[in-house]
Amino acid sequence: MTANFSFECIASCNQTKARAGVFQTPHGIVETPRFMPVGTLANVKTITPAQLKDTGAQMVLSNTYHLHLQPGEDIVAGGGGLHKFMGWNGPMLTDSGGFQVFSLSEMRKITEEGVTFRSPRDGRIINLTPERSIAIQNTLGADVIMAFDECPPYPATREEVEAATSRTYRWLERCISAHQRQDQALFGIVQGGVYLDLRAKAALDLKQFDLPGYAIGGVSVGEPPELIAQIVETTAPLLPSDKPRYLMGVGTYREMAMAIASGIDLFDCVIPTRWARHGTAMVQGERWNLKNAKFREDFAPLDETCPCYTCQNFSRAYISHLLRSQEILAYTLLSIHNITELIRFTQKIRNAILQGTFATDFAHWLKPGEVQEEK
Amino acid sequence: MTANFSFECIASCNQTKARAGVFQTPHGIVETPRFMPVGTLANVKTITPAQLKDTGAQMVLSNTYHLHLQPGEDIVAGGGGLHKFMGWNGPMLTDSGGFQVFSLSEMRKITEEGVTFRSPRDGRIINLTPERSIAIQNTLGADVIMAFDECPPYPATREEVEAATSRTYRWLERCISAHQRQDQALFGIVQGGVYLDLRAKAALDLKQFDLPGYAIGGVSVGEPPELIAQIVETTAPLLPSDKPRYLMGVGTYREMAMAIASGIDLFDCVIPTRWARHGTAMVQGERWNLKNAKFREDFAPLDETCPCYTCQNFSRAYISHLLRSQEILAYTLLSIHNITELIRFTQKIRNAILQGTFATDFAHWLKPGEVQEEK
Repeated sequence: MTANFSFECIASCNQTKARAGVFQTPHGIVETPRFMPVGTLANVKTITPAQLKDTGAQMVLSNTYHLHLQPGEDIVAGGGGLHKFMGWNGPMLTDSGGFQVFSLSEMRKITEEGVTFRSPRDGRIINLTPERSIAIQNTLGADVIMAFDECPPYPATREEVEAATSRTYRWLERCISAHQRQDQALFGIVQGGVYLDLRAKAALDLKQFDLPGYAIGGVSVGEPPELIAQIVETTAPLLPSDKPRYLMGVGTYREMAMAIASGIDLFDCVIPTRWARHGTAMVQGERWNLKNAKFREDFAPLDETCPCYTCQNFSRAYISHLLRSQEILAYTLLSIHNITELIRFTQKIRNAILQGTFATDFAHWLKPGEVQEEK
Repeated sequence: MTANFSFECIASCNQTKARAGVFQTPHGIVETPRFMPVGTLANVKTITPAQLKDTGAQMVLSNTYHLHLQPGEDIVAGGGGLHKFMGWNGPMLTDSGGFQVFSLSEMRKITEEGVTFRSPRDGRIINLTPERSIAIQNTLGADVIMAFDECPPYPATREEVEAATSRTYRWLERCISAHQRQDQALFGIVQGGVYLDLRAKAALDLKQFDLPGYAIGGVSVGEPPELIAQIVETTAPLLPSDKPRYLMGVGTYREMAMAIASGIDLFDCVIPTRWARHGTAMVQGERWNLKNAKFREDFAPLDETCPCYTCQNFSRAYISHLLRSQEILAYTLLSIHNITELIRFTQKIRNAILQGTFATDFAHWLKPGEVQEEK
């Protein structure tokens, strides 16, 4: 790890593999475990950086694929780099674009060299290779950048996943060679689909590179939730214990708690802001549809125990009114609350790890549960 | 005026009728002249009350007509009244619903008793009378409430306008009788269309009631801008000099400057937030379309001299990027700036009045100008 980054594990759970750590980056620390909000297009949807800071956010994610298409990395660099351009002075992470190429774009063609696809924005043909992804991420300037990987779909045959996983390994070697900036940490990504032996092999293969951090990718792509837990349980402990571990694209209560119990430190997910735009509040493990008639005259805050701006100043009835009026402010207030809620959830877990009470306090979250129904 | 309200004129221009004052309300002072942002449905569109406070907003307007339809005044009262419901602890004003009934609703029928119309929201038939408007406004609980008036369209015959103006006078008598709360100030509204003698008569008639404030209504309904200036020039000086004067629905630079020169103290308009949602910034008297290609790589703030959150933290290029990405945050950032800009404009005028330099410093705004073109 370069001098700009360090990861210190300051406490471990003695019944699970959970740990509390401090990840140091050029733009400040990240106290782990911690949820990272997603700012796809250099903004977390509907909220300002000042509001984002008040949620307790430390590290924020942005998407290379989206920023390459709009406004383009050169404009971001012209604006002083991603932090300055979007007004977020804390730690940042960009993904590699790999996941979006595979999940969003049309007419993609994968070769050993890279991926060719048609931009859904303006139809132009774009080539993305490991070198190009790293060059774009170097230009954007986040603290943590991600290796360009091939994310196989679910379901996929063992042969397809094996090919994607070994290509991801070869692409990682090219990413490491292409990476230019000492003030950015390049994380590798473990693929392997739902094949646990392929996951284990990929983890051990990646470990050799002694990278400043490691991610588990290609989960939450449609597989049953119990498979996610198995994948994480198998893979996380094989990754270096002195480096941060990041489970990509996961941000529900149970999946985060179980992953933390397997030794994961970082999470990201678009759920808190996406659900907010659908009128859904996340409250102590539940999902509430604020458009439901029962909230029309409910003058309590969303969550009396929540310190967020929304809960400190507004009632469920007010948010319900804003939603019924199709007022954008509803989405802002719900996004503030939902992000705060998920960050608080990981903070509470962190505190429990520090106090040695994680396995008991969070026991009800550490077993597979039913899929959450909206109430 | 009740003990809860006072208006003090602290400086006057010796070349125009402009004055600087302090209007005291139960929820704080309003330094006049001042622009009031509009929070139609108990929120200023796309911004939080905390962001609104940072714009320099003092008094905020909300719409009785809209709030009666959604969520209904009883829910607002259940939430502790308008201030608490929407989280705005400063001075507030509600209009009477008269203007919206005449401009928005279908199938309206006007009688001496009041107005019957079909709700555009759910189709139900609604009766609005002077008594009902005041009862709703008493329930909502703003500091300043407005008399229920008949706003004639433009153009309208002299006979039509005369009938509407004298009905507005009779309705005012009923509003005064119906008004219940000593902690709310009821303002009368001068109608009279573009007929200056009708305006003058209405102003003198209303003066007899010794109300805590007076408004000029029924302007900016389609008449040429030079007629607005004539109406205000004729009407404002006839209103009591020791009470606040409010020009309803006007919020462009030139119209405000000219109205202030005629003795107007308060303004409201939806322009700053509406234009924001169209991607338009108001910058030192100009309108800029931030979707214009020239802003894509313009890394300066909207206005280097502006203290608002947007100008202190973001570039034109960033806002342009957000607009091209259809990110809601663009509307929030532009609303913050545009509201700040209009309030600053009235603050600068106030400072000039206090320093005796208004007539010279704002000379270029005190003559009829061309309609502003978007740049």
